[in-house]
Amino acid sequence: MLTVRLLPSLFLMLLLSTTQVIAAEPVAMASWQDNAHSQRIKAFVKSVSTEGSTDFVAPADRIAVFDNDGTLWAEQPVYFQLYFALDQIKAMAKADPLLAQKWKKSPVFTAALSGDLKAIVGFGEKGLLEIVGTSHSGMTTDQFEQSVNDWVNTARHPTTAKLFTKMVYQPMLELLDHLRDNDFRIYIVSGGGIDFMRPWAERVYGIPKENVIGSRLSTKYDNVDGTPVIMKEPKLEFNDDKAGKPLAIHQFIGKRPILAVGNSDGDLQMLEWTATNTKPNMNVYIHHTDEIREWAYDSDSHIGKLKQGLIDAKKKNWLVVDMKADWLQVFPN
Amino acid sequence: MLTVRLLPSLFLMLLLSTTQVIAAEPVAMASWQDNAHSQRIKAFVKSVSTEGSTDFVAPADRIAVFDNDGTLWAEQPVYFQLYFALDQIKAMAKADPLLAQKWKKSPVFTAALSGDLKAIVGFGEKGLLEIVGTSHSGMTTDQFEQSVNDWVNTARHPTTAKLFTKMVYQPMLELLDHLRDNDFRIYIVSGGGIDFMRPWAERVYGIPKENVIGSRLSTKYDNVDGTPVIMKEPKLEFNDDKAGKPLAIHQFIGKRPILAVGNSDGDLQMLEWTATNTKPNMNVYIHHTDEIREWAYDSDSHIGKLKQGLIDAKKKNWLVVDMKADWLQVFPN
Repeated sequence: MLTVRLLPSLFLMLLLSTTQVIAAEPVAMASWQDNAHSQRIKAFVKSVSTEGSTDFVAPADRIAVFDNDGTLWAEQPVYFQLYFALDQIKAMAKADPLLAQKWKKSPVFTAALSGDLKAIVGFGEKGLLEIVGTSHSGMTTDQFEQSVNDWVNTARHPTTAKLFTKMVYQPMLELLDHLRDNDFRIYIVSGGGIDFMRPWAERVYGIPKENVIGSRLSTKYDNVDGTPVIMKEPKLEFNDDKAGKPLAIHQFIGKRPILAVGNSDGDLQMLEWTATNTKPNMNVYIHHTDEIREWAYDSDSHIGKLKQGLIDAKKKNWLVVDMKADWLQVFPN
Repeated sequence: MLTVRLLPSLFLMLLLSTTQVIAAEPVAMASWQDNAHSQRIKAFVKSVSTEGSTDFVAPADRIAVFDNDGTLWAEQPVYFQLYFALDQIKAMAKADPLLAQKWKKSPVFTAALSGDLKAIVGFGEKGLLEIVGTSHSGMTTDQFEQSVNDWVNTARHPTTAKLFTKMVYQPMLELLDHLRDNDFRIYIVSGGGIDFMRPWAERVYGIPKENVIGSRLSTKYDNVDGTPVIMKEPKLEFNDDKAGKPLAIHQFIGKRPILAVGNSDGDLQMLEWTATNTKPNMNVYIHHTDEIREWAYDSDSHIGKLKQGLIDAKKKNWLVVDMKADWLQVFPN
C-alpha cells in the first residue's frame, strides 16, 4: 500500500529531475509526520481556502483561534508567566526592604520569594492571583511592557535552560505559517495575561498585538505629571479561560472561528463554540504524549488538565494530535 | 500665486489630453473643500505613508480610531441606538401584554412606550440604561444581531425619513477610503453598543466586525437544548466613553493610534491618549456647524457636547473640521 502511494511521487521526482531545474517549493508543516492527522489539517485548510470548493470560506471569516500555554509553547513544570511573576516579586523585595519585611509575614509571599512552586500551587487560584496581581500592577502599561521585554530576553527555563521563547513548538509555528499562507486570520485566545503575551507574540509567532486575547487585570486612565497613562490595577477583570474564551471571542472578534486549537479542558468551551459555526469548521486538541522530548500529561495534571476534552473529542470526532507520534521535531533548533 | 501653482497642472493636463487617454484617477476626499483643513489631513496621511519620509510609520502601526455617533453618522435629535431600543421596547410590549401591563407602572417605560424623548432624556443615564439594558438583553447574540439587521434595514430617521445608515457622512466615508488606500488600520471606538454597530459596520463603513469597539452589556455562556449560546444580560459591563476609550484601545488593540477623530468631550481622552504616541500623530474634532444641511451644536448640547474639547483643540493645535465650511456635501446621494 505504501509503495503504491509513493509511486506517483517518485515518478514525478524523476520526471522533474531529468527535465528541468525548479525552485524547491517549501514543504508546508515540514515537522509534522505525513500521516492521517497532518493530512486532515491540510485537507481542511485546502477545502476552506479553495475558491469554488463547496466548503469555501471567505478570508474575512477564516478565523483561527489558538490557546497559548501548552498549545503554542510549553507549560511545564508551571505556566511560564508564573516564573515571570516570581522574578518580579523577588526584584520588588530587593528594591524595597520594608516591603520584603512585610511579605515575610505572608505564607504566599514567603513561598514566592523562596521559589517554592509546590507551596505556591498548593495555595490554589487565590494564591496565584495574589502573586500575579501584585507583580503585574502598580505601574503603567508602558512600564509593564518594558519589564516583560527585559525578562523574556534573558530569563531561562529551569530544566531546559532555554529562553522561554525558544520553548515554542516548531510544528505549531509551521501550522501558523500554513494558515497565513492560506489567508487565515489568526488569534491567540489564552488564559495567560494579554499584556504579558503581546510584547513578544509578533516576534515569536508572527501574531500582531491586536490579535492577542487573554486574561487581564483592571486598568485605570490616569495622569502622571501632566501625561496621560494607563495604570495596571491588582484586580482580575477578566479570566480568559473555560467559558471566558467564547465570551472573549465574541467580544474581541465578533465572529465564530472556523478553526480552534487547544490542549486542555480550559479550551473545551472555545472548541464547543467553534463547532456551532454554520461554516465548515475544525477542532484540534494537542495531546502531550512525549515524556522524552517534552512532557507527557493529561487527565491527572495540575497544569493543562485534559480529561473531558478527550472524551468530547472522541465523541465529536475532533482531531487529537499525538505529539510523540505526529511531530518529527518539538522545539525549534 | 494661484496661477503659478496651477500652471504645471494645466500643462500636464494639456499634454495628457493631446497625447494619450488615461483612466481618471479618483480624487481623494472629493466632498471636502480643498482648503487648509483637508490639505492638513492629506499631508499627514502622506507623510506617515511615504517610505523614506522622516514621519514614516509602518502599516502595522498606522492605527486610526474613529468615534461613531456624530463623527461617522449623525446623532440628532438623539443617538440612533435609542430609536432602536424604543422600537424593541414597543415590540416587546406588543408581544407580551402582561409585560406591557407591568411597564405601565414605570415612568421610564411609560415614556419609552409613548416615545416621549424629552422625558426619557430627563431620566438621565439611569433611565437610558434601563431602556437599553431591557431591550438589548434576554436573548442570544445571534438573535440580537438578527434584530439589529431587521431594524437597520427598515427603520427611518424621524425628521429626514432616511434609513439611518444613509445618515452617514459622505466626507467621512471618503476619509476612510483615503486611509485604507494608504494602508491604515481603521477602528471604531464608540460609546455606542459594540453588538449594535457590528452587524452593519462592514457594509456601511467597510470596517470589519473585529475592528469595531464599543460599550457592552455583560454576557453569559449558556446552553440551550444542547447548543452553546452566548446570552446578553441587562448589566452594563463596559462604558466605552471618556476615559473608557483609551482603556478599550489598550485592551483591544494594544497600540496607540496615530490618528483619532471624534466630535465631543466624550472623545477627549481618546485624543489625549493618541497625542502620547511617540510616533507622528494627528487629532481631529468634527465640529457640527451646519444648521441647514445637518445640525449646529457644541457646548450646550445634551447630545455630543463639545466644550472642553474645543478649548484643548485650540491649545494643542488639533484640527477642528468645520462641517459647514469644509464639507461640500454632508450625506451620500
